[in-house]
Amino acid sequence: MHCPDAKGLVAAVTEFIAKNNGNVLALEQHVDPLAHEFFMRVEWDLENFAIPDDKIGDYFDTLIAKRNRMTWRLHFSNERLRLAVFVSKPSHCLYDILSRVQSDEWQADVALVVSNHPDHASIAASYGVPFHHFPITKDNRAAQEQTQIALCREHGVDLVVLARYMIIVGAPFIEAFPERMINIHHAFLPAFIGAKPYHRAYERGVKLIGATAHYVTADLDEGPIIEQEVNRVSHLDSIDELTRKGFDVEKITLARAIRRHLERKTLVFGNRVIVFN
Amino acid sequence: MHCPDAKGLVAAVTEFIAKNNGNVLALEQHVDPLAHEFFMRVEWDLENFAIPDDKIGDYFDTLIAKRNRMTWRLHFSNERLRLAVFVSKPSHCLYDILSRVQSDEWQADVALVVSNHPDHASIAASYGVPFHHFPITKDNRAAQEQTQIALCREHGVDLVVLARYMIIVGAPFIEAFPERMINIHHAFLPAFIGAKPYHRAYERGVKLIGATAHYVTADLDEGPIIEQEVNRVSHLDSIDELTRKGFDVEKITLARAIRRHLERKTLVFGNRVIVFN
Amino acid sequence: MHCPDAKGLVAAVTEFIAKNNGNVLALEQHVDPLAHEFFMRVEWDLENFAIPDDKIGDYFDTLIAKRNRMTWRLHFSNERLRLAVFVSKPSHCLYDILSRVQSDEWQADVALVVSNHPDHASIAASYGVPFHHFPITKDNRAAQEQTQIALCREHGVDLVVLARYMIIVGAPFIEAFPERMINIHHAFLPAFIGAKPYHRAYERGVKLIGATAHYVTADLDEGPIIEQEVNRVSHLDSIDELTRKGFDVEKITLARAIRRHLERKTLVFGNRVIVFN
Amino acid sequence: MHCPDAKGLVAAVTEFIAKNNGNVLALEQHVDPLAHEFFMRVEWDLENFAIPDDKIGDYFDTLIAKRNRMTWRLHFSNERLRLAVFVSKPSHCLYDILSRVQSDEWQADVALVVSNHPDHASIAASYGVPFHHFPITKDNRAAQEQTQIALCREHGVDLVVLARYMIIVGAPFIEAFPERMINIHHAFLPAFIGAKPYHRAYERGVKLIGATAHYVTADLDEGPIIEQEVNRVSHLDSIDELTRKGFDVEKITLARAIRRHLERKTLVFGNRVIVFN
Repeated sequence: MHCPDAKGLVAAVTEFIAKNNGNVLALEQHVDPLAHEFFMRVEWDLENFAIPDDKIGDYFDTLIAKRNRMTWRLHFSNERLRLAVFVSKPSHCLYDILSRVQSDEWQADVALVVSNHPDHASIAASYGVPFHHFPITKDNRAAQEQTQIALCREHGVDLVVLARYMIIVGAPFIEAFPERMINIHHAFLPAFIGAKPYHRAYERGVKLIGATAHYVTADLDEGPIIEQEVNRVSHLDSIDELTRKGFDVEKITLARAIRRHLERKTLVFGNRVIVFN
Repeated sequence: MHCPDAKGLVAAVTEFIAKNNGNVLALEQHVDPLAHEFFMRVEWDLENFAIPDDKIGDYFDTLIAKRNRMTWRLHFSNERLRLAVFVSKPSHCLYDILSRVQSDEWQADVALVVSNHPDHASIAASYGVPFHHFPITKDNRAAQEQTQIALCREHGVDLVVLARYMIIVGAPFIEAFPERMINIHHAFLPAFIGAKPYHRAYERGVKLIGATAHYVTADLDEGPIIEQEVNRVSHLDSIDELTRKGFDVEKITLARAIRRHLERKTLVFGNRVIVFN
Repeated sequence: MHCPDAKGLVAAVTEFIAKNNGNVLALEQHVDPLAHEFFMRVEWDLENFAIPDDKIGDYFDTLIAKRNRMTWRLHFSNERLRLAVFVSKPSHCLYDILSRVQSDEWQADVALVVSNHPDHASIAASYGVPFHHFPITKDNRAAQEQTQIALCREHGVDLVVLARYMIIVGAPFIEAFPERMINIHHAFLPAFIGAKPYHRAYERGVKLIGATAHYVTADLDEGPIIEQEVNRVSHLDSIDELTRKGFDVEKITLARAIRRHLERKTLVFGNRVIVFN
Repeated sequence: MHCPDAKGLVAAVTEFIAKNNGNVLALEQHVDPLAHEFFMRVEWDLENFAIPDDKIGDYFDTLIAKRNRMTWRLHFSNERLRLAVFVSKPSHCLYDILSRVQSDEWQADVALVVSNHPDHASIAASYGVPFHHFPITKDNRAAQEQTQIALCREHGVDLVVLARYMIIVGAPFIEAFPERMINIHHAFLPAFIGAKPYHRAYERGVKLIGATAHYVTADLDEGPIIEQEVNRVSHLDSIDELTRKGFDVEKITLARAIRRHLERKTLVFGNRVIVFN
């Protein structure tokens, strides 16, 4: 939750929980001193909670949120999200996501895999996940995206993951999944925005390469950052070697970002992501 | 603060603050699921707070802490701590601490520097800090420590920093500064406990070297860990080179731990340190 | 190659290459000042090389190695190694290895997967790799290992990877694959040698967890280290959370070690691994 | 040394050393496959070397370098370089450099400290180093720089270190110290080129902050990179906190770069730095 800061907000929320017989398990709160905005995430135990699950939101909104002009979300820890994974030729992030889901590392399912190439159909198949091939041209992109949006809705997709999907996604698709579309960019943003970051990293002679997972917004590679990581490289590394070393950074960075989203520990405010612990 | 977990604790504390006109600026709370212990750190703005500063502790103890069997500490953000820095031959941590204090990076003063060698008297002098040389032998150690304890008390020392002090400190000294004595061990504990860790790291052929800052307890190198860091090394690094590379890891690790202590963001529970953000 | 140090060794080797029309592409050499041992790795272009591939070893041995008491190995860059992957219940390293091989990230094939549990048969199957289940008891271990050795030989296995295989491997197996068996230990060795490292890391309250990939020798967790990596953890992380965070460190560390081995960039000397760049 | 690649180069150089009774201690060589350029660094023992120290350059140039169109440098391991440290208000890099030099961590001396502010005169004085205050305005900058160049020459300065010197250095100064002027930029280049990188890092919501040490060239913040490092930050960090956390990254990054230069392990080729191990 977040709202303009005021005295008594933590007390109000935690009293609401305590009076209804909930036990707070974890709470993180802070005030942004520039924006004078209050931010909080609270986790509580619902055992013997006085308000039924499907009424908690209502009660909270009426009793606490509205009078404090709060923006808030309520999630239950047994939720299982459905992912759509969009991928082009590089397959490392796709493999990583599928194996984490199959081995129950995440509380999520992969609803479908989408690609602009047919190559990875067999990977999806071996994990028992539907695969959809959408060839993209300049002319058909907008139409194809409409079909993709419909497909994602049909499959009950909660989160769209652009797992090295090399097609620029249009505004209607982004707007259909606000703060629910994560991209992995293969550079340490804001360095090397746009195409061929490893080529440019090579030319610039950087000593670390990086990856950035961010929510997708209308501005390419400018969305709010969830997670970043780097790895050391040297003058001996060719562009191919940078690319290969980057694969590991990308898949770990993307996986951490997805996990934070699944745990409901991300909160977007302006162009920044608050990532709770 | 920490205490056995119960419902309503966050609400009780934050209501105490809100009712007395305080504004919570930052709060971190969690329950240890194994120990069923409640932990919390809360920072609030005292402007217009209804209870005078010197009574807050009393009121809090009576109204909140006692009835919940809480262990708690209250600190004010304008406190300035006084450090005693104990050092032997390697001087990198001493230099680092003195320069941070002199450049006002920390809200602290170095009250005195103590060494078992006379070598670093001129360093202390150049920073305008009293220097005390205590030659240590097996026979005089206990007696010298009594003098050191007295000296620290005389100088109003709040925190004793063993900044690569190669003498084992006796129980009376440790007991005189419980949770107020920090040591930097030049290894990634619990690897290489005890003497000559870089020699042993070299022999073991490790690929990373580390440093550990911990509160000092009666068991050598077994105290609760505040901070750890590592750095990459290679087969080309001699023991001297490991030692030199280790210097940077040690001074950064120790500085982070001291800062966390100065910010009052550490809480020792059993043999673990909760380090708040 | 390595041998007792002497003057003229680099010149002798590189002259051998130059006189036979080879072009040196990369060379790393150093002298261990304690052991007075010479170490070198040299890569050269075989285009128009005067000596046929299958005679190079002979010539080198006669003309250079014998007279300098050199230990040496010759590898060709088009070699493709065959891996046996041994795994117990945790599957993250298995998935990671299979997906790297399937996506041609490595110049290697997985010849077979072996497990003491039947659980991962379907993973191996989905990657088209033979799976062998060997139930292990105290009584049958030695016999089962003999079968495993035979099986590995039959499949032409070049490298045995213990990818979170929770069974202690016996001396005959280790001796059958000297410097060709890599284990991933889920701790920053020499910290937390042996069982349940994450439990012990939790109890010790460490602030970083690590993983170590090493060649397997007769002494449990004491073999020469190829690669180590760490990741930051906090007091909030339960043992389960440490374990999960550790998975990523383990799979990346193991993959880097395997790659170094595949690239023929590792050289074991005593209990240390020289890892060339 | 570097030159267009050709067969026999390593052999030619190492034979020159061996024939004159030198023993190669460490050698790194590689060929850049895009530029077809040969790069090598070789360290050898001069004990009983047949050519006197002051003739080695001559002989090498005549016998090896000229006929191979080599660019080369010869350094002796007992050289002690003289540094000029330029600094503005932030003092952390200055302290770090002075303490490393005073504790003999580096084979170097600080010849003088230069600042556009008078504030740090006492720091320099406490380390016994001459301090020169050059107030800089738009109008006097060129003239002041001429004096600074003369002063550096007078003091026999080998390396100019811009240790958080917030004045843009003009072309004549840069040309007077080609590949002998190192700057620390307080960002992970090429991200946040130019002024106020921590402010911009805050606004962009990055999850890691970085620092870059590079040789200074005519293009601001575009010079060849020697070393980069990063540190993790969070949404809780204010601009001041980013700045403070950045201090440690900056001083460590700059120190590593200076050390590499002092060890004569850097070689600039185009806009990239080869950093030998």
